[in-house]
Parts: sequence; structure tokens; C-alpha cells
Amino acid sequence: MLLCDIGNTSYHFLDGETDYKKDVKCFDASSISKNVYYICVNSEVNAVLKTLKNWIDISDLIDKSKYYVTMGIDRIVAVEALLSAVIVDAGSAITVDIVNNGNFEGGFIYPGVDAMRETYKNISSALDYSFNFDLDLDIMPKNSQDAISYGFLKTLYSEVMSHELPVVLTGGNAKELQKIFKNALLNETLIFDGMKQIIKKAKLC
Amino acid sequence: MLLCDIGNTSYHFLDGETDYKKDVKCFDASSISKNVYYICVNSEVNAVLKTLKNWIDISDLIDKSKYYVTMGIDRIVAVEALLSAVIVDAGSAITVDIVNNGNFEGGFIYPGVDAMRETYKNISSALDYSFNFDLDLDIMPKNSQDAISYGFLKTLYSEVMSHELPVVLTGGNAKELQKIFKNALLNETLIFDGMKQIIKKAKLC
Repeated sequence: MLLCDIGNTSYHFLDGETDYKKDVKCFDASSISKNVYYICVNSEVNAVLKTLKNWIDISDLIDKSKYYVTMGIDRIVAVEALLSAVIVDAGSAITVDIVNNGNFEGGFIYPGVDAMRETYKNISSALDYSFNFDLDLDIMPKNSQDAISYGFLKTLYSEVMSHELPVVLTGGNAKELQKIFKNALLNETLIFDGMKQIIKKAKLC
Repeated sequence: MLLCDIGNTSYHFLDGETDYKKDVKCFDASSISKNVYYICVNSEVNAVLKTLKNWIDISDLIDKSKYYVTMGIDRIVAVEALLSAVIVDAGSAITVDIVNNGNFEGGFIYPGVDAMRETYKNISSALDYSFNFDLDLDIMPKNSQDAISYGFLKTLYSEVMSHELPVVLTGGNAKELQKIFKNALLNETLIFDGMKQIIKKAKLC
């Protein structure tokens, strides 16, 4: 079974146990002939995929009544995969969603690592640093690199931890964030786990 | 006495009781003939001002040993103005500095309102919303506008409030942030207050 989670920047495939990515700007979806079960938050890409018979959008299989209309399907699928957690999906955006005893309680959207790095750089060349993920969050910074790292990471950390639920990290930058969220569970295939559950429930294959 | 606080985007003047701004891109500093007491975080502008005799950089009057080398002079001046506070200076960046019984404890840098709005927009056109400053921070969002507003504002709010010190808001977006920091003190001329104190102490005029 070939699965694909399409974000703003890449196609993320899972073929059996192997996962790989393709850039949305250059990948030709019609180059695949076998069935692909997919979700997609990128409306331009989705318009193309809807014209291809072997690309099967599984978002229609989900009861979306407990979510909100403009909520990204990747967030919904991740929430569907877990019972009680704060789900931190760190991609081009960092989405944070709360599921408690199977109930979706809401969520928020924070800029991703690359987006935030670009933001600081654009504000001033004096803030053109990479983030220090080894930062001690208990110490107020006294240098520029730590000052932007703390601004980006501690604010997110404090809010996420305030919900007092297990933290599950997923997405392309999950490993970097694990340096900050030291007790979090890393699950880089959470979206695929959710997709498999949905496909199984619908008895698609 | 004419004071000027120069940031990344504008010259902010205080002439007696009147304050006004000029864009750094088009303002000609040599068009002013009287003495201007200034601080400047913009290195390009500062290089020009150093060639003008009537522009007097007051940053040299401050004992900078308790700060760090690359810390913006505007942040230092604001810290010099207060005894115990969390100072939130909301401009193109939002700087947050802690001063406790006159000791500078450190600080961090967060993106400003416009920079963060641009960041979300650039991540995805689906996140192209203005921020909702009337957001209820106690409720997890269930729509896209609130999801980015919460991501931007609640994370900052939680961190700032955790220091349990009076919050003082200053900078161009201070009024907007006051909707979130409801009990904060608004002081839009904090930097100028600090500059006046430094000038008075040095008996410059």
C-alpha cells in the first residue's frame, strides 16, 4: 500500500516501511501508476490529483463534524490517530492540537523552524542566526542567538506544556524539537498511522 | 531638546511633547540643523549619523558592562529607565527584557506583529489573516484566524506572565498588545524617558 501526505512544500510517501519525499514544485504525480492513498493540504496540488484516477483522497472517509471547516486535513488525521495528547507537528508550520479522551479540544498554528529563521533574518541582519536547540530554557538569554532561540522555542514550550498531556512530536523538524521537549514521544509516521487507521476502518484495502 | 530613537524601519523623534516618525528609507538626517540626542540600532543609518556633528549618540554615556555586546541600545535604554519590570517593546521585533531591582536578568526577541503576519502568509495563503487581538486566551482555537492569533499571542503571553513582574508595554504596536496584556502599563515614550534620564545624569543639557 502506497500512502502520501502532501504538505505545502513536499509529497511525503510511505511505501511499506520506506518513506521518502518529493518537492511539490517538480514532482509529477501522474508518473505513478499504482494506487496512492493520500491526504493533501495544498489546494493547487489537490486540484491536479483530483484528475488522476489512481490517487485516492481518503479525507472523504473521515467524520469531520468535530473539526472546523478550514482545519488542515493533516492535523485532523493526526488527531484521529491518538486518544489523549498534545500533537506538535513541526513542518513549514508547527501545528499544535489537543486531543483529550478522543475529543478534539482545539489547536493553534505557530511558524515552522525555517519560516521563523527567515522571519528573524528579515527583521534585521543582526538576527541572522540559526536556532540553538541546546538552549537551557530556565535561563534568560544574554546573547543574540539565544535571545531569538528562546523567543521561538520557550514561548512554544511553555504553552504546549501548560496542557499537562503527553506530548507527541511529528513532522520534518520533530527531531530538532525533541531537544527542547525532552520527555516527548517522537512519532515521525504519526500521519501515516492515522491514515492506515482510517483506511482500515473504511475497509478500503 | 530634540530626541531620536532610530530602529530598523523608522526615526522616532520627540520634540518637547510632540513625537513623530520618519521612514529610514527616505529621511535625510542632514536636513536637521539643531542638536539631536539619539540612539540607533540600524548600523547603516548610524554610519551616516556619525558623520554629522549635530547628531549626538548618547549610547556612549551608558555603563554597558551589565548588558551583552550585541544587545540593541534601545533595549538597554528601556531597561535603564525602570527598576523592576518585564519590558515588552513591540516594534518590527518584540523584545522582552527582565529588570529586577535594577538588575538586568536577560531577555529574548520575538517577531513583531507585521513580521509575524507576513510569516504566516508566506507559509500558506490559507494563513493570510490579520491577528485577532480580541481573542480569548483561555479557549483553544477552532478556526484559522484564531489558530494563528493564539500561536502568535498566547505563546508570548504565557512566557511574559511567568516572570511575575509588572509588564510595561512600549513601541509602535504596544496598544494592540494591551488588548492581550490587559493589566500591563502602557508607556509609549519609555525609550525617551530612559534617554532623558541618561542625558540628565551626564549633565549634557
